[in-house]
Amino acid sequence: MTDLIKLCENERENIISIRRDFHKYPEVYWREFRTTGKIGEYLSSFGYDVYYGNEVLKEDFVMNYPTKSEIDIAKDFALKNGGNLDYLEKSGGYTGLAAVLDTGKIGKTIALRFDIDAIDVIESTDNDHRPYKEGFSSVNYGKAHCCGHDGHMAMGITLAKIISQIKSELCGKIIFIFQAGEETVAGGKSFSQSDLLKDTDYFLSAHLGIKADKFDKDIVGVKGFLATKKIDVTFYGKSSHAGVSPQLGNNALLAASTAITSMYTLCQDGRGSRRVNVGAINGGAARNVIPDKIDIKMEVRGETNEICDDMYRECVKVMENVAVMYGVRADIRVVGEAPGAESDKELADICEKIIKKLYPSHEVINNWDFGASEDVTFIMQRVQNRGGKSHYMMIGTELAAPHHNPKFDINEESLIKGVKILLLTVKELQK
Amino acid sequence: MTDLIKLCENERENIISIRRDFHKYPEVYWREFRTTGKIGEYLSSFGYDVYYGNEVLKEDFVMNYPTKSEIDIAKDFALKNGGNLDYLEKSGGYTGLAAVLDTGKIGKTIALRFDIDAIDVIESTDNDHRPYKEGFSSVNYGKAHCCGHDGHMAMGITLAKIISQIKSELCGKIIFIFQAGEETVAGGKSFSQSDLLKDTDYFLSAHLGIKADKFDKDIVGVKGFLATKKIDVTFYGKSSHAGVSPQLGNNALLAASTAITSMYTLCQDGRGSRRVNVGAINGGAARNVIPDKIDIKMEVRGETNEICDDMYRECVKVMENVAVMYGVRADIRVVGEAPGAESDKELADICEKIIKKLYPSHEVINNWDFGASEDVTFIMQRVQNRGGKSHYMMIGTELAAPHHNPKFDINEESLIKGVKILLLTVKELQK
Amino acid sequence: MTDLIKLCENERENIISIRRDFHKYPEVYWREFRTTGKIGEYLSSFGYDVYYGNEVLKEDFVMNYPTKSEIDIAKDFALKNGGNLDYLEKSGGYTGLAAVLDTGKIGKTIALRFDIDAIDVIESTDNDHRPYKEGFSSVNYGKAHCCGHDGHMAMGITLAKIISQIKSELCGKIIFIFQAGEETVAGGKSFSQSDLLKDTDYFLSAHLGIKADKFDKDIVGVKGFLATKKIDVTFYGKSSHAGVSPQLGNNALLAASTAITSMYTLCQDGRGSRRVNVGAINGGAARNVIPDKIDIKMEVRGETNEICDDMYRECVKVMENVAVMYGVRADIRVVGEAPGAESDKELADICEKIIKKLYPSHEVINNWDFGASEDVTFIMQRVQNRGGKSHYMMIGTELAAPHHNPKFDINEESLIKGVKILLLTVKELQK
Amino acid sequence: MTDLIKLCENERENIISIRRDFHKYPEVYWREFRTTGKIGEYLSSFGYDVYYGNEVLKEDFVMNYPTKSEIDIAKDFALKNGGNLDYLEKSGGYTGLAAVLDTGKIGKTIALRFDIDAIDVIESTDNDHRPYKEGFSSVNYGKAHCCGHDGHMAMGITLAKIISQIKSELCGKIIFIFQAGEETVAGGKSFSQSDLLKDTDYFLSAHLGIKADKFDKDIVGVKGFLATKKIDVTFYGKSSHAGVSPQLGNNALLAASTAITSMYTLCQDGRGSRRVNVGAINGGAARNVIPDKIDIKMEVRGETNEICDDMYRECVKVMENVAVMYGVRADIRVVGEAPGAESDKELADICEKIIKKLYPSHEVINNWDFGASEDVTFIMQRVQNRGGKSHYMMIGTELAAPHHNPKFDINEESLIKGVKILLLTVKELQK
Repeated sequence: MTDLIKLCENERENIISIRRDFHKYPEVYWREFRTTGKIGEYLSSFGYDVYYGNEVLKEDFVMNYPTKSEIDIAKDFALKNGGNLDYLEKSGGYTGLAAVLDTGKIGKTIALRFDIDAIDVIESTDNDHRPYKEGFSSVNYGKAHCCGHDGHMAMGITLAKIISQIKSELCGKIIFIFQAGEETVAGGKSFSQSDLLKDTDYFLSAHLGIKADKFDKDIVGVKGFLATKKIDVTFYGKSSHAGVSPQLGNNALLAASTAITSMYTLCQDGRGSRRVNVGAINGGAARNVIPDKIDIKMEVRGETNEICDDMYRECVKVMENVAVMYGVRADIRVVGEAPGAESDKELADICEKIIKKLYPSHEVINNWDFGASEDVTFIMQRVQNRGGKSHYMMIGTELAAPHHNPKFDINEESLIKGVKILLLTVKELQK
Repeated sequence: MTDLIKLCENERENIISIRRDFHKYPEVYWREFRTTGKIGEYLSSFGYDVYYGNEVLKEDFVMNYPTKSEIDIAKDFALKNGGNLDYLEKSGGYTGLAAVLDTGKIGKTIALRFDIDAIDVIESTDNDHRPYKEGFSSVNYGKAHCCGHDGHMAMGITLAKIISQIKSELCGKIIFIFQAGEETVAGGKSFSQSDLLKDTDYFLSAHLGIKADKFDKDIVGVKGFLATKKIDVTFYGKSSHAGVSPQLGNNALLAASTAITSMYTLCQDGRGSRRVNVGAINGGAARNVIPDKIDIKMEVRGETNEICDDMYRECVKVMENVAVMYGVRADIRVVGEAPGAESDKELADICEKIIKKLYPSHEVINNWDFGASEDVTFIMQRVQNRGGKSHYMMIGTELAAPHHNPKFDINEESLIKGVKILLLTVKELQK
Repeated sequence: MTDLIKLCENERENIISIRRDFHKYPEVYWREFRTTGKIGEYLSSFGYDVYYGNEVLKEDFVMNYPTKSEIDIAKDFALKNGGNLDYLEKSGGYTGLAAVLDTGKIGKTIALRFDIDAIDVIESTDNDHRPYKEGFSSVNYGKAHCCGHDGHMAMGITLAKIISQIKSELCGKIIFIFQAGEETVAGGKSFSQSDLLKDTDYFLSAHLGIKADKFDKDIVGVKGFLATKKIDVTFYGKSSHAGVSPQLGNNALLAASTAITSMYTLCQDGRGSRRVNVGAINGGAARNVIPDKIDIKMEVRGETNEICDDMYRECVKVMENVAVMYGVRADIRVVGEAPGAESDKELADICEKIIKKLYPSHEVINNWDFGASEDVTFIMQRVQNRGGKSHYMMIGTELAAPHHNPKFDINEESLIKGVKILLLTVKELQK
Repeated sequence: MTDLIKLCENERENIISIRRDFHKYPEVYWREFRTTGKIGEYLSSFGYDVYYGNEVLKEDFVMNYPTKSEIDIAKDFALKNGGNLDYLEKSGGYTGLAAVLDTGKIGKTIALRFDIDAIDVIESTDNDHRPYKEGFSSVNYGKAHCCGHDGHMAMGITLAKIISQIKSELCGKIIFIFQAGEETVAGGKSFSQSDLLKDTDYFLSAHLGIKADKFDKDIVGVKGFLATKKIDVTFYGKSSHAGVSPQLGNNALLAASTAITSMYTLCQDGRGSRRVNVGAINGGAARNVIPDKIDIKMEVRGETNEICDDMYRECVKVMENVAVMYGVRADIRVVGEAPGAESDKELADICEKIIKKLYPSHEVINNWDFGASEDVTFIMQRVQNRGGKSHYMMIGTELAAPHHNPKFDINEESLIKGVKILLLTVKELQK
C-alpha cells in the first residue's frame, strides 16, 4: 500500500505556492472568476470530471448576485491577471465548481467542500505583514483573503491531486465542491441543492484557525452553528426642508432608528440564543433636509432554525410597521442565509482518532459549540436529511491576527497537516 | 445729478458675464480661493481699499474649517483655473474680503454683504439646463452655484463699480463684505466681529429668489429667521462579533438611534418653534460586527436664540447620556451657527417705496417670516446692537428649479434689478 | 331707565351664597345631577323656559359618557344631597340645560354659556384653605370645584335673574346655556349642535382667572385656542413567564413605550404649534410576567384644526402600527374634543370699552393668545359659521392657587364684577 | 427498626388539616406573623429548639421590608385570627424560624428549608374551586396561598414530627428552616447567612408542582436556576401644562419609556441567557399635565451570577442616564435577589433511587433546567461553598390551575408522598 504521508510531504512546497497565488488574486462572492478558472485547470489536469457554476448549483437558490457593472469589473480583473474564463459558457456565468472522481468500483460516495471567496478588507501593507513583505499580498485593492479560504483551496486541490494518484486503491466516488460566496452566506444554499450531492454517504468540511488557534490544537465534531439570515433594507421616505416645512417630510431616519432599537428588544427566548445586529447604516443628504433614504445591513441568528425564522419574521414585522407609522416604505431583501447544523459524532470520533495517531501531542477538542454561522450547514443538512453523515472541523494554525483583520495570516505548516487529516479520513471511510 | 438707472443699464452685459464666470468655477466654504482673488481684483481696480481674510474676520469665530488636504485640493483647483492667490499672504489663508470706499466727507457708514460660496451638488448636465447648454456649468465636479451666490457676487461687484463712479456725489463710508461660508453657516460669525463694521449705521443684504420666485415679486422687511446651530457628531463604540460575543461590544448605532429618536421628542415649546433634524448618518462596517463608529450630521433651530440654545443644550444632554448608557463616547462639534434676527421697519419701508417707484406693477411683500436660517443675522444683530439698522430682502426672479437642486438657475434679468434697488437705497440712506 | 349697577349690587350676598352651595356639592362631567336640578329651579323661578339635557344637546355628539355604575353612584350622591332629579325624565338622563327668555319684541338673539362641571381633585383640608375653614369645601370626596365653574354658575344665575327683572327694557331673545362636561371637553360638541342656537347673533362666554390673575386685570378678545382631541388607549398583549418563556408573550408595555416616544417625535410643524402629551399610564401585573394590558390617557393639540387633525391621525397611525409590530392590539377611544377659535374683534372692543368705563383703573388686555383648549370653541365656531359673532373673556380675580390645584380659590368680589360686565355687554348689543 | 412508611401514613389526615389551616390564613413576605407563630408552636411541641426571626437570619441582608403601616395591618390580622405573637420579642419583629434537633450523637448536619409566604392574588370564589367550596379559602382578602407554600409547611411540620419520633435512631443534627419572603426573593439572602447553617453537610429543599405536574412524575437534580434581581424604580420629573408650557416640564414618562425600550435591547449575550422584564408601570395624573412621577416594577436575570450582575449594572446605567437626559431623577431600589445554583448530582441520584423504590411506576426526571428563579439558591450556594452538598427537587402533583393563578390548588395526596421521599433521603444521608 502507498505511503500516504509521504505523498503528502511531496506537496509541501506546491501547496504553499498554490495558497500564495490565490492570496495575491482575491475575488469576492460570485466574482471568483480567475479563482474558479484556476481550480478547474488543476482538477481537470488530475483527471477529474469538472462541473462549473450552474452545472452544479441550482440557480433558483442563488442569493445576493452582484449587479452587471460589479460583474464586469470583476471579469476585467480576472482577465488582466491571467484568468481563463472559457468555462463561463458552460457555467451560465456562475462561479464555483464540482470535481468528481468515479473509481468505477462499488463503494461510498464521499463529498468534501472548500470555500473560495475573499472578503472586503484592505489588506495590510505594513512590513510586519508577511504576505506584503514577501510579495504575495492582494493586488485587488479592497479585497483580501483574510479568512483563510486561500488555504482551504490549496488543501482541496492538493488533496484532490493525491487522491487521483491513489485512485486504484479507492472505491466509490469522491466529490470535491469548491463553493462560491461563503462569506456572505450567499452561495451555500444553491450548491447544497446540487444533483451531484444527492447520494452522498459522507460529507467532510474544515476551516483553518478560528478557535483552533495553534498548530497543535484541532477541533472536531463542531456543532452549535447558529442559523442566520442576512438582510439588506432600504427605508424610502420623503424629503422636505427641516426648518420651513418639517411636517411635509416622511423621515426615513426616524423610521430606521425606531426599527433598529425595536428589533434589539426582541432577543429574549427561553428556547435558546437569538441575535440581531444592524452592522452598517448609510443615508440622508444635507443636514437641513428630512432624510428620504436610509440603507441598513443587518442579520438575525437563532440557536435553532425555528428561532432564527421567528426572529426574521418579527424583525420584518417591526420594519414594515415602523415604516407605515412614519409614512415610509421599507424594502427588505434577504441576501444570505444558513441554517444551524451539528456534526455527526461517528465522523468526529474517527477524525479525533486519526489526529491523535498522526500528532499524539496535539490537543483535540471533540464536540464544540460554534456560536457563529457558515453556509456549509446547508450541505451538512442535505446530506444528513438523506441518511448520510456530515462533519465540520477546525484545523489548528497560528493566526497573525483575528479572522477578517487586515493582518490576518496563517501558519502555512498547517496546510499539509490538513491534507493529511482529510486524506486519512477519506481512506478510513472507504473501509 | 447722474442718471443712476442709466449707469446700471450700462452694466447689463457685464453683470451676466461676471455671474457666469463665478458659476463655472464654484468653490465651497473656506475654499473660495479663486473666487476671492477675482473679487479682490475687481474691487481694487475700482479704487476700493481691499481687506482679505483675517484682515476682516476674527479668526476665533471661524467654524468648520476644512482639513489640510481639503484646502490643498481647493488651492490646486484655483491655481489651475486662473486664480490669483497672492492675497493669501495677507489673509492668513482665509477667504472672503471687505472693500471700503471712504468718500472723505462726513456721512453715514453703510455696509452691504454678499455671500460667495457654492454648495456640494452635482450640477445637471441635461440639455434643458441652460448653464450646461450654454457652456458655463461647473467645472468643479460635485460643487455648484445652485443657490444664487454667483448672482449675489455679480450684483455686489457691479454695485461697487457704479458707486465708485459716483463717489463725488456720495458722503460717509461704503463697505462691501464678500462673506465666505454662508451655506454651512460657518462664516457669518467671524465676519460679523470685524472691526470694520463697528460704526455701521445701515446694513443691507439681499438674496435672489426663495419666496420671491418671480421677476415682478419682491420681498422686503424679512424677519423670523430661525436661530440655528449645525452640529457634527461621532459616536465611538467598541466592535465585537455579533454572533459569538455581542456582550463584549458597545453598540454605537444603538446609541445613535436612541439619541436620534429621543432628540425628536424635545420639540414642544410654548414660546415658539423648535426644530431638530438629523439629515445624514453613516457608519458601521460588516453586518456581523457590532458597529463601533457612527457619524451624524444634524441641526437645531429655534424661533428665538433662547429656544435654539435650549434645544442645543438638551440635545447635547441626550447624546452625552445616551452615549454613557451604551458605553459609547459622543464627540460633538458645532460646525455652524446663526442667530435669529429681524429687519428694521424703517429700512423695509424705504426699500418698498423704491421698488414701487422703479416697478409700479410689482408685488412687494413687506414684513415676511423667513422660517429658515442665514448667518447674515450675526451681522444684522451686531449692527442693531450698536444702534444701527439692518435690512434683508429677497429679489424676485424666476427659478428653473428650487434652491439646491441640480437644475437651479435664475432669470439673469433680475441681477440688474437688484443693483438698481440697492443703489437707490444707498442713495436714499445718504440723505 | 333702571340703574343696572344697583341691581347688580343687590345680589352681592346672594351670588356668594350660590357659589358656595355649588362649591360644596361638586359633580364631574355628565354627572352634574344635583347641579343641573338646582340651576333649573332658579331659572324656572325667574320665568325662563328651561330645556334639559337632550332637549338642548344632540345625543350623537356626546363624548366620554360614564358607565352605568358611575352614573348610579352620582345620582345617589345627588339625591342624598337635596337634588331634585325630576327633570331627568325630560332630559333623557343627560345633564346641563338651556334657559330662554323671549322678550316678544323684535331684536337680536344673544346667547351666553356657563360651564357647570367640577374636576377629579381632592380638595385641600388645610386650615388656610378658605372653603374648608368656612365650611363650604367639597363633601364629594375626590371631586372639587377647583377651576371656578362654581363661580361661573353663580354669575350666570345672577345675570339671568337681573335680566328677567329688566325684561321689559329688552328686545329679541336671551339664551343661557349651562353646559355639562367642559373639563374633559366631552360636552361642548353636543351642546353646540343645539337647535336653540341656530339663529344666534351674538355669543358671549367668560372664564374667571387664568391669566387675569388680579381683580383689576381683565382680558378680552381671547383667541389662539388650541384645537384638541382627548384620547384613551388600551394596549392588549399576551402575558407569559418572563424568565422561562419570554418569547411566548406579546409585551403591551414595550408597545406602549415605543408608541409614546414615537408620538413625541411628531411635533415639528411649519404651520404652527403641535402638541402631544401622554399624561397617565397604568398597567401590568407582577414583575415576572410579560405585561398584557397597559392603559394610557393622552391628548393632542394643534394651532389650527388641520394641525390637530393631522396630529391625531399620525398618532393613531403610530399606535396601530406599533401594536401590530409587537403582536399587540391598540384600542383607541376619542373621549373629548374641541376645535380652535378666535373672538370677534367687534365684541372685544365693546367689552373693553365697558370695562374701562366701569373700572377706569383696570388693566385690560385685548387680543390675547390662549395657548390652551376649551370646548366653548364648538359654540363660538357654530355661531360664527352662521354669520354671528362670538366672544370669550377672562374676568380678573386673585387666585389662592393655580387652577386645578387642591387649594384653588377665587376672590368672590369678582363675581359681581363679572355680572356687571356681561350685563352691560348684553345691553350694548341690544342697541 | 421503625416502619417509616407507616409513621408517614399515620399523618395522612393531620397533614391535610395543617395545610388547610395555613391556606385559610395566608400572609405575604415579612408579614407571616400568625404563620410563624403556628409553626413555632408545632416545632416546640415536638421537642425542637426553635429560633425566631433575627435569631436565625442576618438583619443586614433583609430586603424589601414593608412599611410600618403595612406591618401594623398584618399584625392586626394575625392577632384577630388566633395568632400567637409572643415570639416577636425574641425575633426582633422578623418572621420565619429555624428548629434544630440535636441527637447528641456524632453525625452529619442535615438542613431542610420550607418557604412560608403567600402571594398577592385574589383567590377564586367560584364553586369549582375546592378551597372555596370546602371552606378553607383565604380570609385575608387579596392574599392567597396560590403557589403551594401551605403544602410545603405542612410537609415540613409533619416531617419534623416524625423525625422527632425516631430521634433515637438518628445521629448528628437536623435543622428545619422555615423561610419568610421567598415569593419576592426578599428573604433567602438573610436566612442563608444564618450561623446555624455554617456546618451543614447536606441541604435539601423541594417545591410542589411546577413542571412535576402529575402525582406520578417527580423531578430531582434541579439546576439552571437563573440568577435574578428584583428592582423598584421611581422616575421623578417636573409637571407643567402640556398645552401652554410643555418646555417647562421634565417628562418622567418619556424617561421611563425610553429606559424601558433601551433596557430590552441589552439581552444578547454569548455566555448564556439574559433577561429583563418591566412587569408593571403606574404614574402620571391628568392627560394635560406633563407626568412628574412614574413607578415601575422590574427584574433582571442571568444564566450565571456574572451575567445577572452585568445586566443589573447596565440597566442601572440606562435608567440613570436616561433620567439625566430628560432632566428627571431615577430612584432605583433592589427589593429582591437570588443567585443561580445547581443541585449536586450525588443527592439527585440518591433521591431518584428512593423515588423509584417507593413508586416504581413514577417517571423521574433527573438533571433538569429550571429557567426561573428561587432564593433557596442563596442557601444552596452557601452550603456548597463550605464543602456541603445541596439538592432541590419538585414533588409531582396535579395542579388545578397554574401557579399564581386564582384557582391554583394541589392534589393533597402529594403531601404525604413528599414527606416520605424527604424522610428516606434524610435517613439515607445519615448512613
